[in-house]
Amino acid sequence: MNNKEYAKIVVEELTHTLSSIDTEAAERFVQLVMDAEEVYCAGAGRSGFQVKGFAMRLMHMGVNSYVVGETCTPNIKDNGLLVVCSGSGETKSLVNHAAKAKEMGAKIALITINPASTIANMADVVIEISAPSPKSAKEGDIKSIQPMGSLFEQSEGIFMDIAIMMLMEKKGLDSDTMFGRHANME
Amino acid sequence: MNNKEYAKIVVEELTHTLSSIDTEAAERFVQLVMDAEEVYCAGAGRSGFQVKGFAMRLMHMGVNSYVVGETCTPNIKDNGLLVVCSGSGETKSLVNHAAKAKEMGAKIALITINPASTIANMADVVIEISAPSPKSAKEGDIKSIQPMGSLFEQSEGIFMDIAIMMLMEKKGLDSDTMFGRHANME
Amino acid sequence: MNNKEYAKIVVEELTHTLSSIDTEAAERFVQLVMDAEEVYCAGAGRSGFQVKGFAMRLMHMGVNSYVVGETCTPNIKDNGLLVVCSGSGETKSLVNHAAKAKEMGAKIALITINPASTIANMADVVIEISAPSPKSAKEGDIKSIQPMGSLFEQSEGIFMDIAIMMLMEKKGLDSDTMFGRHANME
Amino acid sequence: MNNKEYAKIVVEELTHTLSSIDTEAAERFVQLVMDAEEVYCAGAGRSGFQVKGFAMRLMHMGVNSYVVGETCTPNIKDNGLLVVCSGSGETKSLVNHAAKAKEMGAKIALITINPASTIANMADVVIEISAPSPKSAKEGDIKSIQPMGSLFEQSEGIFMDIAIMMLMEKKGLDSDTMFGRHANME
Repeated sequence: MNNKEYAKIVVEELTHTLSSIDTEAAERFVQLVMDAEEVYCAGAGRSGFQVKGFAMRLMHMGVNSYVVGETCTPNIKDNGLLVVCSGSGETKSLVNHAAKAKEMGAKIALITINPASTIANMADVVIEISAPSPKSAKEGDIKSIQPMGSLFEQSEGIFMDIAIMMLMEKKGLDSDTMFGRHANME
Repeated sequence: MNNKEYAKIVVEELTHTLSSIDTEAAERFVQLVMDAEEVYCAGAGRSGFQVKGFAMRLMHMGVNSYVVGETCTPNIKDNGLLVVCSGSGETKSLVNHAAKAKEMGAKIALITINPASTIANMADVVIEISAPSPKSAKEGDIKSIQPMGSLFEQSEGIFMDIAIMMLMEKKGLDSDTMFGRHANME
Repeated sequence: MNNKEYAKIVVEELTHTLSSIDTEAAERFVQLVMDAEEVYCAGAGRSGFQVKGFAMRLMHMGVNSYVVGETCTPNIKDNGLLVVCSGSGETKSLVNHAAKAKEMGAKIALITINPASTIANMADVVIEISAPSPKSAKEGDIKSIQPMGSLFEQSEGIFMDIAIMMLMEKKGLDSDTMFGRHANME
Repeated sequence: MNNKEYAKIVVEELTHTLSSIDTEAAERFVQLVMDAEEVYCAGAGRSGFQVKGFAMRLMHMGVNSYVVGETCTPNIKDNGLLVVCSGSGETKSLVNHAAKAKEMGAKIALITINPASTIANMADVVIEISAPSPKSAKEGDIKSIQPMGSLFEQSEGIFMDIAIMMLMEKKGLDSDTMFGRHANME
């Protein structure tokens, strides 16, 4: 297939995953970000790249955001929100981070394929993405032509970009205001 | 608007950007990756996260891939391909990297909004994404409801995921084979 | 030679480099950090790792510190200080960062082997480390048994650790206070 | 105190820590690196920066080295060595990595303050650094004027730089050969 044929199918898959994200859960996710004094973002592998994109946009909006594992990220406290992106909801390092956040009294938001996972059980809100698991793509009843967790990763990234627009709407921000905080050394 | 209403518009925007990527350019991009002995990936900000996702998938496929700026990335040589993601095609650090790659005899592939940019002029293939520039969203005739470069960043990420599927097809790989090289410490 | 024999020589080399750092320049460096509302840290390669260690300690002290190139680093403004670690003082990306910092009215501190370099000429303070350049170790009159820039990198790291102790003294902080801000998710 | 007075004490502390590293353990560490087909480097916080410096030098030497957590790091196999830097030897994420490495049949080298730790018990070689623990600096009988884990972090960094020289000696490499592999895009 050529790129346009693939694109047609990928967009159809995204239409499925994005339109099946629960509206109340999405509202609650946005509200948790609004209410937090500090937002900590964590993810492994390609989910980690997507959640970093979210952390950066939050910084553009003037929100105090941090990426877990980066140099100047302080300890999480009870005024913090931990946003975790994990397809399985079982990634060991992320389970540890969630447990620590909970111990400190922080809130937890999880974006996942698996709403019955260990991290889901600790979370204040779970955004379920209806995409195949990378480890059992052949077993589930949800199909994707894409390898491993690609559909999940695309969907979580776009969902977080949508959450940014919902936050901008609530805060009365526009793209120009945000561009002023864009890093000028890169 | 709620998340599903936003999702509908974002998917329409992606349908536009992805379906307007030139098929010959996409084929040439994939061929350059096939032909390279080492693939170096570079991007700043949120484009940087997208190109890291590509670098990681190349590693899953068994391709020798590197992210420019990470710890164990060696010098680029004439058997290398530099994949640059830059909306403007003018990011200073990326212009420097492209100039160095060219000096060493390496190939350059650019994914950009701006096919008339400095890096585009050095590139062996340019993938043009028909998305608004983050700095002049109001001026162009292409509209997006999304802030800054979000539409571009989503589109380049998905395009590279499509390029991965085209590569898998050419190499006869499937998702299970690739999962075997997935990092087991994360 | 065994590790203890090497250690003896390395410690002698460090005694030389650290004891020849100008006391007035060191005081001025510490004062610039004290006066800045935000401290931005930049370096490439192994110098980058050393300056990240400094950025992290500043965070432990409660200073608003950032690493240039990390996810949540905002734009530098006129109340900022840019700390650059560069043996040559000519690394292209760092020259660009310094030029941008200067344009914004921020202060610049440079730790370098080369006090006649492009970045040195823009800097408000230059900490000169009397170590051989990685590119011309054989030409200079300063000798080191260590490869490439190792002596410089060790020396800049220890100098910044000393600057931290000078800052702690000025601010009346001790190790226990600082440990409270240590990242609790890592 | 001024920077030269601090330097005098820091160098004395380093003389103590570096001269008390066991010579047989150091030889064994170097031999494990020599024998490994791939070297994986892991550490958290400031120890992470030191071990990245080691990973980069290994790359300069032509060794296949990787940093755990970076983009293109593949899974560890039985021909691999995991080098862990951890003051406490108990950092949760690093315990997980070590357990996974052991499960795969890889070797483990640990640089630590605590030779009785969980990771030490899994390790094929333990390099003990005689420095105070960041969490109990006041309790131990080893004193340092430096805050938190600074003395440990400096010592582990310099020890790994010494290990590089021991490797160069065994492999017949010099600084000029290595500089040829230095990243040319940074």
